Amino acid sequence: MKMILSLASIISLLAIIIPVAHGGKVLVFPHDGSHWVNMKVLVEELHSRGHIVTVIRAADSWYISETSPHYSTVTVDIAGGASEDFYRLFVSEVIKIKRSQGSVWARFALDMELKEKFSELHKKVCEMVVYMLENQELIKSFQDAKYDAVLTDPANGGGVILAHYLRLPLVFNARWTVHGEAHFAIAPSPLSYVPLPPSELTDQMTFLERVKNILFYTMRMHLYKQVAGPHYSALSNRYIGPDVDYFSLFQAADLWLMRVDFVFEFPRPTMPNVVYMGGFQCKPAKPLPQHLEEFVQSSGEHGVIIMSLGTLIGELPQDLANEIAAAFAKLPQKVIWRYKGERPDTLGKNTLLIDWMPQNDLLGHSKIKLFISHGGTNGIYEAIYHGVPIVGIPIVFDQADNLSRLRAKGVAKVMDISELDRQTFQTAIQEVLNEPSHTLNMQRLSKLHRDQPMKPLDHALFWIEFVMRHKGAAHLRTESYRLPWYSYHSLDVMLFLLTVALLILALFVGLVWSCFRLCLKRKMKSD
Amino acid sequence: MKMILSLASIISLLAIIIPVAHGGKVLVFPHDGSHWVNMKVLVEELHSRGHIVTVIRAADSWYISETSPHYSTVTVDIAGGASEDFYRLFVSEVIKIKRSQGSVWARFALDMELKEKFSELHKKVCEMVVYMLENQELIKSFQDAKYDAVLTDPANGGGVILAHYLRLPLVFNARWTVHGEAHFAIAPSPLSYVPLPPSELTDQMTFLERVKNILFYTMRMHLYKQVAGPHYSALSNRYIGPDVDYFSLFQAADLWLMRVDFVFEFPRPTMPNVVYMGGFQCKPAKPLPQHLEEFVQSSGEHGVIIMSLGTLIGELPQDLANEIAAAFAKLPQKVIWRYKGERPDTLGKNTLLIDWMPQNDLLGHSKIKLFISHGGTNGIYEAIYHGVPIVGIPIVFDQADNLSRLRAKGVAKVMDISELDRQTFQTAIQEVLNEPSHTLNMQRLSKLHRDQPMKPLDHALFWIEFVMRHKGAAHLRTESYRLPWYSYHSLDVMLFLLTVALLILALFVGLVWSCFRLCLKRKMKSD
Repeated sequence: MKMILSLASIISLLAIIIPVAHGGKVLVFPHDGSHWVNMKVLVEELHSRGHIVTVIRAADSWYISETSPHYSTVTVDIAGGASEDFYRLFVSEVIKIKRSQGSVWARFALDMELKEKFSELHKKVCEMVVYMLENQELIKSFQDAKYDAVLTDPANGGGVILAHYLRLPLVFNARWTVHGEAHFAIAPSPLSYVPLPPSELTDQMTFLERVKNILFYTMRMHLYKQVAGPHYSALSNRYIGPDVDYFSLFQAADLWLMRVDFVFEFPRPTMPNVVYMGGFQCKPAKPLPQHLEEFVQSSGEHGVIIMSLGTLIGELPQDLANEIAAAFAKLPQKVIWRYKGERPDTLGKNTLLIDWMPQNDLLGHSKIKLFISHGGTNGIYEAIYHGVPIVGIPIVFDQADNLSRLRAKGVAKVMDISELDRQTFQTAIQEVLNEPSHTLNMQRLSKLHRDQPMKPLDHALFWIEFVMRHKGAAHLRTESYRLPWYSYHSLDVMLFLLTVALLILALFVGLVWSCFRLCLKRKMKSD
Repeated sequence: MKMILSLASIISLLAIIIPVAHGGKVLVFPHDGSHWVNMKVLVEELHSRGHIVTVIRAADSWYISETSPHYSTVTVDIAGGASEDFYRLFVSEVIKIKRSQGSVWARFALDMELKEKFSELHKKVCEMVVYMLENQELIKSFQDAKYDAVLTDPANGGGVILAHYLRLPLVFNARWTVHGEAHFAIAPSPLSYVPLPPSELTDQMTFLERVKNILFYTMRMHLYKQVAGPHYSALSNRYIGPDVDYFSLFQAADLWLMRVDFVFEFPRPTMPNVVYMGGFQCKPAKPLPQHLEEFVQSSGEHGVIIMSLGTLIGELPQDLANEIAAAFAKLPQKVIWRYKGERPDTLGKNTLLIDWMPQNDLLGHSKIKLFISHGGTNGIYEAIYHGVPIVGIPIVFDQADNLSRLRAKGVAKVMDISELDRQTFQTAIQEVLNEPSHTLNMQRLSKLHRDQPMKPLDHALFWIEFVMRHKGAAHLRTESYRLPWYSYHSLDVMLFLLTVALLILALFVGLVWSCFRLCLKRKMKSD
C-alpha cells in the first residue's frame, strides 16, 4: 500500500495551504460508482464558485478520474472494493436467473454474494481511512489546509470518520446511509405510512402491507448492521473514542443534502437540517447532434421512444434482446436504444442502436414520447424534469422501488423482466403511449418539480456555503440521537409515571381496606 | 345580526368576479388582535404583487380596519369575542396579582377567566362562520369570486371550516392552532426533546423535566380540547360531515407558513409542507425622527436602552413604574421607554417617556445596546434581526416561554415581575450590558437569521402563490392523520405480530410436550 500524490494534487495541496480570499476549501470523500455522477455535479459547481476541492479516491477507482480541472485528488493505493467488472457480471447474472425463473435458492445465493461484496466494500473504505489516519504527513497536510467542510456520500462511512477525526463540519450528499434510506437515520419515520425502501410499498398501505413494512424494516436493519457494523465500529473505537457508536457519527452531520424531491418521494417527516435537492443534476436540453436530430425528425407525428438501462447494463441475453427488438419493430414510433450487445435478429428499421446517447438532450426533445428505463434515479429525475412518462424494467438495487413510486403517481408502467416478451412489452408501451393520463401526470409532476423558489443545485450550494461560513449548522441539528433509545421514546418516563400511579392506587386500596376493616371491627364489637 | 358590506367591499366584490390576468384572489380569515399585525404584512405583500385580497372581520374588530387600500373587507356584524379592553384589564390584573405575590387561588381564578374568554372567542368565531354559511347570497358571492386559496391563522378555526366548505386550498399563517403549538398538529414531536410551549423547557431536559413535559402535554391537550372542541365539533358536524373530526380539517391544510426560525425555536421534526418564515416582518431600520435621533446621539459612548412591554401594557402599577424608573436613573445610558402611565416620581433625566416608538428603527440604530421587552414574538424577532440583546419581563401568554428560549441561547436575561425592584432590575441590565457574551451571541443569531437563501417574506409569498398556481400542495402533505391513532403508531400491527409469535410459541411448546409424553409412555412401557 502506498500513497500516490499526483502532480496536480501536490500543486493543489500547496494551493490549499495558501488562503483564498473569496473561496473556501472542501474535502470530498465520494462513494464510487454511479454515486460519483451526482457528487461530481456538486464538485464542479463548488469549483466554479471559487472553492478549492480535494477529492479522495482509491487507486483503482471505478469512476473518479485522478486528474481534473475542477478538483485535485488524494489517491490512496488501496483497491476500493467492488469493481465495475463485478457489478457488470453480477447484473448479468441477475438478469439470467430472473429470465430463467431461477430457483429461490439461486436468487438467495446472489443476494448473499451481493451482501458479501457490500461488506467487502465497507472493509476497503475502512482500510483507506486507516491508511490516511496512520499517514501523519497526510493528516498534517489536511490539518494545515484548514478545510471548511467535509462533503461526503454517507453510502459509505469513510468521510464521516475522517470529518470527525479532523473535527470539521460534515455535509452529506445523501440518499442512502450504510443503514439504508437516509431519512430513517435522523427523522422520525412512522412505519404506518413511511415505506422503507426498497420494499416497493407506498404511503397508503393495507394492514398486511403495514405488517410487511415492519418486518422488512426489522430484517433490513439487522442486515445493514451486519454488513457495515463490524468495520466502522472498529474504526470508530480506534480513532474517535471507545464509547462512540459509529452510527451516531452519521447522525451528527451538520447538513443532509437529500437527492430527493417530493414529486418522487412520498411526503414524510423531515428535519430542519435536511435540504432537498432531488433533480439538482437536471438541466435544459441542448440541441442534438445532426444525425440524431435527423433521425428524431423522421419520426413524424408518431414521435420517438428512447431506451437505456443505465451504464451497467449495455448488453442483454440474446433472447431478451430479440423480444425487445421485435416489440419495437411493430411500433409506428422511431426508437433509439442504447445497446452495446450483438445486433438482435428481430431489429426493425425504425430502431436505432447506439453505444451512448445524450440522454438528457433526448428527453428534453419535443418529439420524445416515452422513456424505457431500468429505474436509476439519475434517469428518473431527468424524465421528471422533462415530463416524459416511463416504462420501467427494473433489474437490481433500488430500481424496482424507484419505479414503484412512479407507478403510484401514475406516470410509469413497470415490467417484470421474467415476464417480458414481445407481446407484454408492446402492450405496456402502447398503454403508456395511448392513455394520455401517464403523459399528463408526468407533465404535472414536471411542472411541480420545476416550480421551486430556487434551482435545487443553487439551493444545495447555498447550504454547503452556509456550513462553510458558520462552521456548521448546529442551530438546525437536534442532538436527540444522543439520548438512549428508551429515553428518546420516553419509555423511562412512562414506567416512572406508571409506578407512581400504581403506588397511589395501592395506597388508596390500602386505605380503603383499612377503613373497611376498622368499620367491620367496630360493627362486630357493637354487635 | 346583519351583514355590513362597505362600499370598498362592494367594489371589491365586483372586482373579484372579474378575472385578473396576472393576479389571483385570496380570502383571508385572520385572528384578531396582535396576530393581525403579522397577517397584515402578508396581506399587503399579496396586494403589492397584484393579488386581490378579501379580509373577513367582525364588526367590532379590535385591530382590523374596515377600509384599506390593500384589501377589501367582508364585515360580519357579530362581536368577535374578547375585546382589547378585556385583555388590557386582564393583563393589569395579572401584574397586580403577581406583584402582590397573590395566592395560588387568585392566579387559578385568573387562569379560569382566561380559559372562559378563549372559549367565548371560539364561540363567537363559530357564530361568524355560521352567519356566513347561512347567508346564501354571501356564499354565492364567495363561490362566484373563484378564490384561489384561503389564508388563515389557525389560532381560531373560522378560516379552516370556511375553506373546507368552499373546497378551497388552505394556507396557514401559523404559530398556534386551537390545540396549541402548531408543529404538534402535524409533525411527530417526541416529548423527550421537543418541549411543549409554554412549558419554558428546552430541548435538553433532565429526567424530571421530561416527566414535566409529558404531564404538561397531557393536561394542555385536555384543556385545549375543552376550550375549542365543543364549538368547532358542532360546526364541523353541521357543515362538513357528521363523521369528520374537526381537528383533521386543520391537519389537512395544504401549507403551513410557520412564524418560526430555528435561531429561536429548538430544532425538531418538521414536515415537507411546512415553510419557515420567522422574522418575515423584519426590515432594515429607517432614519429616526429628528428629536429621537438627537436624544440617541446625546448618549455618547454609553449608548441607549429601549423599553416597551407591547401594545397591551402601556401602564404599570405606580410602585413598579417607580422601581423601573429608579433603576434607569442610575445608569450611564440614555433610556427610551414607551410608557403611557403617570410619570414616575423617580424618573431620571436620562430617561425619555414616549407614547409610541418606532421600535424597529430604534432596534436597528447603532447606538442601541439593550432591549427591555415583555417577550412578544414580533419584538423578539426584531431584536434578533438587529442583533440587540434582551432583558425580558414576561407577563402572560407565551411570553415567558419565548424568553426562556432566548435565555437558553444566551441572549437574554429574564426577570420575574414579582421580584423586580430597582436593585434586581439594575443588576440584570448591567449584567447584559457588561458581559459581552449576550451581545455577541445575539449578533451571531442575527447573522444566522439573516443568512437565508431568500428573505422569509419572499419565501412565504412564493409558497402562497405556489398553492394558488397548483390548487394546493397535495404532493407535500401526508394524509397520515386519517389513520386511527392505533394504526398510526402501528399498535395493531404489533399486537398482530405478538399474537402470531405467541401462537407459534404455543404450538412449539405443545409439540415438545407431546413428544415428551410420548417418550415417557414408551419408557414406561419398556420398563
